Amino acid sequence: MIPADFLIDDADVVATMAGPAPRSGTAQGDIGALTRASVAALDGRIVFVGRAEACRHQVSLRPGATIVDARGRTVVPGFVDSHTHLVYAGDRRDELQLRLAGATYAEIAAAGGGIVKTVAATRAAGEAELVDAARPRLAAMLAHGTTTAEVKSGYGLEVASELKMLRAIRRLADEQPISLTATFMGAHECPVEYRDRHGAYVDLVVDAMVPAVAGEGLAEWCDVFCEQGVFTPDEAMRILRAGLARGLKPRIHADELALSGGSAVASEVGARSADHLIFVDEPHADGLAGAGVVATLLPAAAFFLKLGRYAPARMLIARGVPVALATDVNPGGGFTPSMPFVMALACFAMNMTLEEALVGTTINAAAALDRQTTAGSIEVGKPLDAVIVNGPLSELLRVGAPVIGAVIKHGHVVA
Amino acid sequence: MIPADFLIDDADVVATMAGPAPRSGTAQGDIGALTRASVAALDGRIVFVGRAEACRHQVSLRPGATIVDARGRTVVPGFVDSHTHLVYAGDRRDELQLRLAGATYAEIAAAGGGIVKTVAATRAAGEAELVDAARPRLAAMLAHGTTTAEVKSGYGLEVASELKMLRAIRRLADEQPISLTATFMGAHECPVEYRDRHGAYVDLVVDAMVPAVAGEGLAEWCDVFCEQGVFTPDEAMRILRAGLARGLKPRIHADELALSGGSAVASEVGARSADHLIFVDEPHADGLAGAGVVATLLPAAAFFLKLGRYAPARMLIARGVPVALATDVNPGGGFTPSMPFVMALACFAMNMTLEEALVGTTINAAAALDRQTTAGSIEVGKPLDAVIVNGPLSELLRVGAPVIGAVIKHGHVVA
Repeated sequence: MIPADFLIDDADVVATMAGPAPRSGTAQGDIGALTRASVAALDGRIVFVGRAEACRHQVSLRPGATIVDARGRTVVPGFVDSHTHLVYAGDRRDELQLRLAGATYAEIAAAGGGIVKTVAATRAAGEAELVDAARPRLAAMLAHGTTTAEVKSGYGLEVASELKMLRAIRRLADEQPISLTATFMGAHECPVEYRDRHGAYVDLVVDAMVPAVAGEGLAEWCDVFCEQGVFTPDEAMRILRAGLARGLKPRIHADELALSGGSAVASEVGARSADHLIFVDEPHADGLAGAGVVATLLPAAAFFLKLGRYAPARMLIARGVPVALATDVNPGGGFTPSMPFVMALACFAMNMTLEEALVGTTINAAAALDRQTTAGSIEVGKPLDAVIVNGPLSELLRVGAPVIGAVIKHGHVVA
Repeated sequence: MIPADFLIDDADVVATMAGPAPRSGTAQGDIGALTRASVAALDGRIVFVGRAEACRHQVSLRPGATIVDARGRTVVPGFVDSHTHLVYAGDRRDELQLRLAGATYAEIAAAGGGIVKTVAATRAAGEAELVDAARPRLAAMLAHGTTTAEVKSGYGLEVASELKMLRAIRRLADEQPISLTATFMGAHECPVEYRDRHGAYVDLVVDAMVPAVAGEGLAEWCDVFCEQGVFTPDEAMRILRAGLARGLKPRIHADELALSGGSAVASEVGARSADHLIFVDEPHADGLAGAGVVATLLPAAAFFLKLGRYAPARMLIARGVPVALATDVNPGGGFTPSMPFVMALACFAMNMTLEEALVGTTINAAAALDRQTTAGSIEVGKPLDAVIVNGPLSELLRVGAPVIGAVIKHGHVVA
């Protein structure tokens, strides 16, 4: 008998997501579904996944074990939110109301709003203040089933403040249930004091920030906002290569507002993920597929920013690019903590199937973070991170309905 | 001093929505905002709305009074969801997954799905079963701030089953906090057994159902699905006039899938509301404005059904039609219970301002149900139905974030 101290018993369906990672093309929809299935864990790790009937014969529950009755329910892996900017200080909530009333970004910036406001507030905040501000954001994500997330710096834009943000991420990783991975993104924006000497800021990122971040072991990833008016493809390449030389793996904000070169950089530098991609075309999609880059799509950003179009998910899937989905939580337009809402946008606004969207929020998102061996699927040996859905899988798309029965992290019910 | 037993104390903003109802054009955005304001009630009715400072001098709280601390918060009227089909039996949740995988409505119907399945299950269910099934749907709506709602029949499509649905609505009205108003909608669809004698079904609605419903006092409204392949404008007119003759006020499903005559019927018959209106054009909008018809827009239906377009909210507002917003909760595509999500779609997909969307979910929706004197605003003499928003008003648009601090119905905290 296999000993266990945690049992999800007799689910209608367990979407194990077992299989290669990341997956693309027709495999984008492979969710590894088992019916009438149970999942058992010991000390937080999965020891059994299979038919409920077989579980009864093969698994022995220890005294005091937790049993989650999953009859009539669906079990999916905990969601992996592979793109967030959830650490920041300051309040820009009033900007949305102005924007919806017709104010332009330039008008909001002239009134002291926009990213400049977040940078000023984040620079002024202490590390503990950043942690306190981020904590409820993580709690809201957890309530919607996120058990692993990426978090970026990029509102400091000076050495000390970037390090402070990354240290806040490290503290958050230690104190709450969601597993976090940190991304250094000094190249999120050129700060005001460098506006007339853009090149000098790139030098600062490359020569001072990257070594400091890597030296302190504060980040796993290096990211750049490659876009017209932000950082050029050449600058992005230089920064990502500087990161790589110090052990920071590349990822990139690419082709969000125009086909501006970001996806080409991603393919050339071998980024683990190219994110946004609203304007990517077929040749560049082929480049991503060939280079093994995951396309991380952020439909909630397109929705809340009223960009009027979404990333070409169907084209990317058809050309063999693995698609992941993430929230893009941020103070200016990343208003939802909910991966199920992102799935709903993927299905209803980007024409993905439910199964493709689930792969995008679990195993492919895990692969976009190099976490495919520890997250994103329900397989023996992995930590038990799971979401219990009240009813069939499609219930996840019922925006606002109380469909999440429980969230399980490392073998504990946490929400 | 004004005696009170319930106090919402010192809100940053109270959106009173005071003013004429329904409102249109530039007044569509008038939310009657008071800053640093309090609201007091006695026995469920509002006795004071005004500055917090003035409240302290004018209102005397009784011993044991409830005090809601609203500092840092925004207070809005309880939402009025003026279009739902929330009473039904049966489970069509699997259809969504099939539809997203590419199945057509015809294929789903051929496999035994679609509205026919809901009709069969609803006919087979007892009244108590319908009540039990609907109860959690109302609870989910209440959790998102809905305190008044309209509910339609229309899955019975035979005299006894339509009456059964309406009696279930009456029971639900008595047993839970949301105020309900019932709509008879025998003309929701032509049932299978009448498919080759459509006219005979219209006769049944007019000659048997309307008198039975009116005779038992089970409905306030009469509704028709006027659309190509469902009921013609002439049939809609006949049914709505038959209802009017028996005291059932007209409302109509109009121009959802094509400009098929529904808005013209609404204007001619003097419907209180014309709903959906995705294909309404400028001349017909002028007709609605002239006839005093409220346009009830259902963007969640357009979203979940992937109709590829939304009602022309800006055009309707510009032409002076008062716009209301509702969920369209139903088993086939009305998947959200959340009026805040409907507001988000109104803002981000239909380009309404936040203030216009709030008017649409409160005072204009109340007017669409002839409830403008008892719901939809926070004014002295009205029942105290309110939602406490954690933070500024725009927080309501953060889909999935925990922004609703409390829901108050008739002077009691109910969610």
